[in-house]
Amino acid sequence: MDKTTPAIILTNPQMGENIGAAARAMLNFGLTDLRLVGPRDGWPNPRADDMSSGALAKMPPVQVFETLGQAIADLQRVYATTARPRDMVKSVYTPRSAAQNACTHREQKSGFVFGAERTGLTNDEIALCQHIIHIPTNPDFSSLNLGQAVLLICHELYQAQDKTPDKVLEHGDSAPAPQDEIEHFFGRLTDALDDGQFFKSEGLKPTMERNIRNIFTRAELSSQEVATLQGILSALGKSKKATE
Amino acid sequence: MDKTTPAIILTNPQMGENIGAAARAMLNFGLTDLRLVGPRDGWPNPRADDMSSGALAKMPPVQVFETLGQAIADLQRVYATTARPRDMVKSVYTPRSAAQNACTHREQKSGFVFGAERTGLTNDEIALCQHIIHIPTNPDFSSLNLGQAVLLICHELYQAQDKTPDKVLEHGDSAPAPQDEIEHFFGRLTDALDDGQFFKSEGLKPTMERNIRNIFTRAELSSQEVATLQGILSALGKSKKATE
Repeated sequence: MDKTTPAIILTNPQMGENIGAAARAMLNFGLTDLRLVGPRDGWPNPRADDMSSGALAKMPPVQVFETLGQAIADLQRVYATTARPRDMVKSVYTPRSAAQNACTHREQKSGFVFGAERTGLTNDEIALCQHIIHIPTNPDFSSLNLGQAVLLICHELYQAQDKTPDKVLEHGDSAPAPQDEIEHFFGRLTDALDDGQFFKSEGLKPTMERNIRNIFTRAELSSQEVATLQGILSALGKSKKATE
Repeated sequence: MDKTTPAIILTNPQMGENIGAAARAMLNFGLTDLRLVGPRDGWPNPRADDMSSGALAKMPPVQVFETLGQAIADLQRVYATTARPRDMVKSVYTPRSAAQNACTHREQKSGFVFGAERTGLTNDEIALCQHIIHIPTNPDFSSLNLGQAVLLICHELYQAQDKTPDKVLEHGDSAPAPQDEIEHFFGRLTDALDDGQFFKSEGLKPTMERNIRNIFTRAELSSQEVATLQGILSALGKSKKATE
């Protein structure tokens, strides 16, 4: 048993394909503790192996239990993924806040419980769990596939601890250009534009220069791209087509 | 064409099942503008219909294009879902920040482009798109199923505009108890505990009372539950087993 990462518990799963998809989704996001309660078609299941794209072979053996109570016996925080309960007093989390909550308490072993494909979790099963997760969806078409529900929870758990920056400009093999390279290009460009009578009015020239400069500063150019633009400038100066 | 919600564009999808799963995921999160570029098995595709669980029948007709350029011609913000590019200068978003970015500019029509199952997007296809989304996953098992990649983006788009509170205590049909009901129960409980010589030391009694009180305040009881606790107290007083 993996003591450090959350467990995923599927109660009475019917389709082997969904168990396999859940396993693949788990390993995609670094989870390996899969537990089944009374899988309809027994265990192991070749359809699950096929759908897992090799994930089941790479994970520790799946644990199979007779009851949900046995499957969650060692867990300290248990979240049931289900619709909002109508007749129970329970805290209801979004997937994101539940994942953050589990991540905040990562020294405690947590588990995420999913019900059978069509019927979901029974009220008795929900009562065994401390918290509820309700996945917000389109109210007119709200039924998520089991494998996809597992995927969303695993994704949120991964995101809760992932340090990937929200947005980066990826420069690949090339480095961002230093300002003097950009200025050198811009100087050549404005000289050429002056020469080609681009600036019809001296009064508007500063504004137009600023607007053109903004195109190139916004583009966050690499050194390689500045060199390419210098080449474009030279080629356009030689081209007859550019003046047609 | 839906002018207000993002489009999902699948380029050269091979498996009808994945197209169907993508459609189901889209409608789960309120999206209906699905576009295909050169689907391998043509269109329509019965396997896609089956896997969509009725989503395709409820959505406007899927648009099919010959090239990605045609499929995105009307879009103002185009995000390519792909691995980090090694030889291109592009801004790379997480799914979450891309969804927030698209939501911030929701007056502009956006689209999210996904490549073929095994080969992904070509560099020429990526170059047509303004931004890149890279889904952070377990580096040792990073390959997401196409339908699942679409699901994650649709989920993030839905979350970016969803107002569901992070955590609520769902009281179902019962209302949260007012403080005087809880105090009345607590008064009866401490009287009974006094009577049963629960408090061994007068000096420790205030601390123990506080600790017991914390159990019940933390539980955020409903009126119905306070009534149940009152009944438990009465029953325990009458029970011979409780004193055994």
